[in-house]
Amino acid sequence: MNTPKYISFSCPVPLHDYPHVLLAHGGGGRLMNQLIESIFIPAFHNAALDQRHDASVLEVGASRIAFTTDSYVVHPPVFPGGDIGSLAVHGTINDLAMAGARPLFLSAGFILEEGLPMDDLWRFVQSMQRAAAEAGVAIVTGDTKVVDRGKGDGIFINTAGIGIVEHDAVIVPQSVRPGDTLIVSGDLGRHGMAIMAVREGLEFETTIRSDSAPVADLVLRMLSERIEIHCLRDLTRGGLASALNEIAAGSQRTILIEEKQIPVGEEVAAACEILGFDPLYVACEGRFIAFVPSSQAERTLDIMKSHPLGQGAAIIGIVSDESSPRVIMKSRIGARRIVDMLSGEQLPRIC
Amino acid sequence: MNTPKYISFSCPVPLHDYPHVLLAHGGGGRLMNQLIESIFIPAFHNAALDQRHDASVLEVGASRIAFTTDSYVVHPPVFPGGDIGSLAVHGTINDLAMAGARPLFLSAGFILEEGLPMDDLWRFVQSMQRAAAEAGVAIVTGDTKVVDRGKGDGIFINTAGIGIVEHDAVIVPQSVRPGDTLIVSGDLGRHGMAIMAVREGLEFETTIRSDSAPVADLVLRMLSERIEIHCLRDLTRGGLASALNEIAAGSQRTILIEEKQIPVGEEVAAACEILGFDPLYVACEGRFIAFVPSSQAERTLDIMKSHPLGQGAAIIGIVSDESSPRVIMKSRIGARRIVDMLSGEQLPRIC
Repeated sequence: MNTPKYISFSCPVPLHDYPHVLLAHGGGGRLMNQLIESIFIPAFHNAALDQRHDASVLEVGASRIAFTTDSYVVHPPVFPGGDIGSLAVHGTINDLAMAGARPLFLSAGFILEEGLPMDDLWRFVQSMQRAAAEAGVAIVTGDTKVVDRGKGDGIFINTAGIGIVEHDAVIVPQSVRPGDTLIVSGDLGRHGMAIMAVREGLEFETTIRSDSAPVADLVLRMLSERIEIHCLRDLTRGGLASALNEIAAGSQRTILIEEKQIPVGEEVAAACEILGFDPLYVACEGRFIAFVPSSQAERTLDIMKSHPLGQGAAIIGIVSDESSPRVIMKSRIGARRIVDMLSGEQLPRIC
Repeated sequence: MNTPKYISFSCPVPLHDYPHVLLAHGGGGRLMNQLIESIFIPAFHNAALDQRHDASVLEVGASRIAFTTDSYVVHPPVFPGGDIGSLAVHGTINDLAMAGARPLFLSAGFILEEGLPMDDLWRFVQSMQRAAAEAGVAIVTGDTKVVDRGKGDGIFINTAGIGIVEHDAVIVPQSVRPGDTLIVSGDLGRHGMAIMAVREGLEFETTIRSDSAPVADLVLRMLSERIEIHCLRDLTRGGLASALNEIAAGSQRTILIEEKQIPVGEEVAAACEILGFDPLYVACEGRFIAFVPSSQAERTLDIMKSHPLGQGAAIIGIVSDESSPRVIMKSRIGARRIVDMLSGEQLPRIC
């Protein structure tokens, strides 16, 4: 019998520069963006995917639902403030929340490596369930695959999520308007630095804990208070800088931010300093950026600060009326610089 | 800083016999069943999951939707009749079809190993898109993670799927009734043996091609012809034997099948003989079993045979009025034997 041959498809440019997948293709920066724009978007081309948003909003029967997926490969799988189980629930809930949806149901797909201690699996499953129950979502369908030793890494978890959209707002980058105010829901970089501190064995007076948390309740509160939300984005892989660059590209607007307004905790700043990271690019798992009309900015800030997951919220910038898609930061000493998308791999397997 | 410790949860019995995950825990047999019943069902306990069906049927707003997920880790990723991309689309569409749903949307979550040739990724993505387009579904949301070399195996794909349920039938094991007729939609074992023939380098006069195909259109045709379908199950991991054992357990009924009625192709039978497999346990990816009232059996068979994906359909058994949950087969020579669930691992990484 003939072993089937790979049909020769040629890959679209500019991928000829990268004949093989690199860690950076999953890192949330420029290469990942290139992969998405050169392979996934052209292949799967459809209106929902073209929203280029964390979750797709779809008409199903008489309902508007949000649908999203994420795989979790975080290493190590246990870290201060969470584990791969809670992260897999929070991350997917947050993607639904970024479409302004009320999260309802999750799926859970496990890829286990032969030899994973059964107690670890039990622990992660319990952690998922606790996180789901706390956020009021149900894990309703699942799948388990096992791969041979050396072909996986303990446990990978995929969760997909379904939420219901109960409002008429179109929360996408294209809805961003000149003059919109940017509000970040809390301090940056805690998730990424919590993971890195464990990996590198760094010790601080206070352990850096991941900010991993489900922010849907906070977003729904903003919507119920009739905040006219133009866009939301959670600050995961690639951090604030990548999120803003994606929104600048989607809205074709220049975004201006002020360094001194951006909240970064002392330990996180110290860890970034030691390890050579820029907090603007470090992943969070319980923080998001909201774009709202400036007339509602102060009220939005009050609503966020009154919620346990928005206590550290801060106004950090505005959308200018320039139509060149880029992000500009005014530094502490008043200089202006372009905040670019991450070029290489900053933090592999952070989520 | 203290490295976080694993909290000591003790795992529920009977898993103390298996302190580590084995390949067989993903094989579709008894151990996988034990894992599901001992870990996932108790942890995630809810009504939807308690259906123990391929897809969960959920109320979302005014709609009834089906939701399912599967990860695909098939090795090798290319085989006669398909590849991991087409399989990841067909498999999830089929899980939706088994709830009688019309598949609408898929998500795609990729876990790539550093070093995967970009052309391979491109090829698999194209294959997914072709399979999705042929089945009339859209891939609307996705995610890509990259793991370090040696921590994955080229490519794993998770797809979750959403379908709409446009009828009132409750297609679950609990709906099975004594006297129901069992109809299988085609010959058994082609997917599993196509994979194994490649792995083992077996050559036959005719290459065994996987039966991987989306069966939703066939199921929707049966529903539109007003067949009163009581239960459906696709014959993936663990094959016909596992599917029937699960349905026997869910319905608390004895299922009787006749060996000579069960369609198995010549090459598949020969490959099973050589490799020591029983075709009853070998995975298909485009075959299912339907339980219908016996008064509708002949008409159902006609409808199935008139569809390209049901040409090899055959009536293979009935549901007895005994309430002991087991599967009994009458052999070619008239002997009766219990067809048990697969005990160990038969075919790892078949899907």
